[in-house]
Amino acid sequence: MKIKRVAVAGFGNVGKGVIEVLLQGQIPELKLEKIVVKHPNKVRPFTVEPNLIVTDFSQVVQDPNIDIVVEVMGGTKDAASLILSALRNGKDIATANKAVITQHGNEIFSLATDLGRTIGLRGTFVGCNALIHDLSLSRKSIHKIYAILNGTCNYILSHMARTGISFEQVLREAQEKGYAEADASDDIDGVDTARKIQILLGIISNTYNIPPEIPCEGIRNVTMQDIQYAKELGYAIKLLGIIEREDGSITVFVRPALIPHGTLLASVEDANNAIELENDLGVVSGLVAPGAGTYPTTVAIINDLLDIAHGAALMMPTSNTPVVLNDIGNIRGRYYLRLTVKDQPGVLAQITRILGDHDISLASVIQKEWAPAEAVPLVMTTHQVKERELRAALEKMDQLEVVKAKTMVINILEGGSQQPALIR
Amino acid sequence: MKIKRVAVAGFGNVGKGVIEVLLQGQIPELKLEKIVVKHPNKVRPFTVEPNLIVTDFSQVVQDPNIDIVVEVMGGTKDAASLILSALRNGKDIATANKAVITQHGNEIFSLATDLGRTIGLRGTFVGCNALIHDLSLSRKSIHKIYAILNGTCNYILSHMARTGISFEQVLREAQEKGYAEADASDDIDGVDTARKIQILLGIISNTYNIPPEIPCEGIRNVTMQDIQYAKELGYAIKLLGIIEREDGSITVFVRPALIPHGTLLASVEDANNAIELENDLGVVSGLVAPGAGTYPTTVAIINDLLDIAHGAALMMPTSNTPVVLNDIGNIRGRYYLRLTVKDQPGVLAQITRILGDHDISLASVIQKEWAPAEAVPLVMTTHQVKERELRAALEKMDQLEVVKAKTMVINILEGGSQQPALIR
Repeated sequence: MKIKRVAVAGFGNVGKGVIEVLLQGQIPELKLEKIVVKHPNKVRPFTVEPNLIVTDFSQVVQDPNIDIVVEVMGGTKDAASLILSALRNGKDIATANKAVITQHGNEIFSLATDLGRTIGLRGTFVGCNALIHDLSLSRKSIHKIYAILNGTCNYILSHMARTGISFEQVLREAQEKGYAEADASDDIDGVDTARKIQILLGIISNTYNIPPEIPCEGIRNVTMQDIQYAKELGYAIKLLGIIEREDGSITVFVRPALIPHGTLLASVEDANNAIELENDLGVVSGLVAPGAGTYPTTVAIINDLLDIAHGAALMMPTSNTPVVLNDIGNIRGRYYLRLTVKDQPGVLAQITRILGDHDISLASVIQKEWAPAEAVPLVMTTHQVKERELRAALEKMDQLEVVKAKTMVINILEGGSQQPALIR
Repeated sequence: MKIKRVAVAGFGNVGKGVIEVLLQGQIPELKLEKIVVKHPNKVRPFTVEPNLIVTDFSQVVQDPNIDIVVEVMGGTKDAASLILSALRNGKDIATANKAVITQHGNEIFSLATDLGRTIGLRGTFVGCNALIHDLSLSRKSIHKIYAILNGTCNYILSHMARTGISFEQVLREAQEKGYAEADASDDIDGVDTARKIQILLGIISNTYNIPPEIPCEGIRNVTMQDIQYAKELGYAIKLLGIIEREDGSITVFVRPALIPHGTLLASVEDANNAIELENDLGVVSGLVAPGAGTYPTTVAIINDLLDIAHGAALMMPTSNTPVVLNDIGNIRGRYYLRLTVKDQPGVLAQITRILGDHDISLASVIQKEWAPAEAVPLVMTTHQVKERELRAALEKMDQLEVVKAKTMVINILEGGSQQPALIR
């Protein structure tokens, strides 16, 4: 067994875990050779031998004693330039940096492929990395992926459901406790989930030529009302990243979804993440694991390093085949609609007429008695409908004089035909 | 990429799935070359070209055109002899046969190690195989494994809990529906779970020298009363295989356990299996997947074949280091006790005196009002206690004149110190 000599670029939240584990010397395949930091005099959670520390990338990328560079410094421009020049100098890479992979993946993967080098991506999935090796093995047979990939969103949604506290307040608390970043918009608006879904799409399609934008909606508009109505109807609301492949067509999006109580995905709490896979033989499996944190990311990166050391890394996309996504209007499914309507006679008739005109049939309607108010919620769930038809109906409905606000629309996931075989 | 030529030995429930997938020709790395069957004229679920079929092992093991033999014929003696002679002839192996691995593992792994060959073991874990590659990578850091590894037992226990139907009746129904074998004793008595735990122990300890027997108790004595009392106390009952490593000591056993509601393991229903891992950095992840079935096992075996084709197989134990297990008397934990006692004054005093003499303190007691009866249940849960102390107390308690039957004892799992960090 050849020992792989590792340089870690970055000594932040992720870097410190990787450095700590490598310094323990319990992994005979791996030896920490260098640490690249910007500020060598900064106080660290533990001290390291000064001769390990360098402040200049070039001391690592040009060092013939380094086999693998762990990129955990964050950012995109400098990180991309480090990765590319390390590759050119014959190093393999392990990274936890989703932004650099989604923004510069094309350049990075094509160079790595040309040079026969490896980019380890487990770190970008934190705890859920444990499915990634097998996913990359059986990529072609993956039929559906339903995944909770953002710890902050899942923390907020599950905390709202448990405590009845509003989105804004839970977010503020999460920020105070350090569970959410001060600017949490990448998390809340689904951008972080979209990045992970783009990386998964690249892995299972074995291409780095993936669309830079995918349909993406975050959780900013999910209200406590939605969570309570969903609960009443038998569902939890989670932010999902979804990939569905059928007959050569690929549908990809990030959205909140209603998931039936009693299923694995509905029961994922707090900052945990989960990936549920279905393959083309109908086999379903689901992994639940932490979505963030120093040690969960450390474990992911160490497993990448071990896979590279054993020549077993498989997960990197290696072709330039373009992925063409299905128009989101083509998807069929069931939907939850929360309208905000005037509390007056004939409203339901006006709305159901429009739905009927578009062949949309309702599975349930909830209209409660409210204290007199300018506008009241009217909640409906549809049977299977094509999204394009639904959007056309919604456009007309939202123009009605009796509809006082934009209607909230959330996909409903259920077991059954044309739906995922959700684990219960 | 070199194409690996595969022979499948066995055309039963598992074999037919592997053969079907290989014949579809969708996996460029793998080519089906031969199928070994006992009865060439038996009607099969689909027809295969006659020139693929052979009836004699030697036509496969001595064929230089075969690279990998998939052993899915079942049994132990013939299977072991096929595997050993295939290894000697330079073939790699993938198997789903737990019995052959636990009974002949020593010989098989030592020969494979000597010859530099690979034994793929994913098939023995069916759906839960997806964690096995990463488990074999990070084997040394695995701290605890809590696993539901038998689909039949989990089907019976979760069906009992849901329907209130007795163990005997659920088992009979499961047998009629084909979920359980006519002789289900290997499943129900925990033997199948123990085999999988032995294989996991071999993988994470990297040795094939594992104890042929581990402490093992099945679900035969779990009554509807136990399930109902557990529910009342906030727990589900599942059959668990457990591995705990601490300070160089390894505790291994198979037993029913009370698992808190709201955790991943408690929510695993029907014939699903689950593995929950905790590593020495405190990172916990859990996989839920089908515990049996043609296609789930097929996927596992195909992934083994792909790992072998890519030179990425890592999971096989390669050393002969003996594993010494902790005496089960040394484990500490909380326990559920269901005594069967005479309904008369002073009974509780007699029992609590014995418990007090052994420094065992109670967390809860449930004694309900019953219609006059010869004997009534008395349910208690203990605080943390050493199993040896508990057993000593139980021996005395069960000799009391007022105790009318052997006391049912079940471990209680909870998050917290000295307990697994169960995923919620």
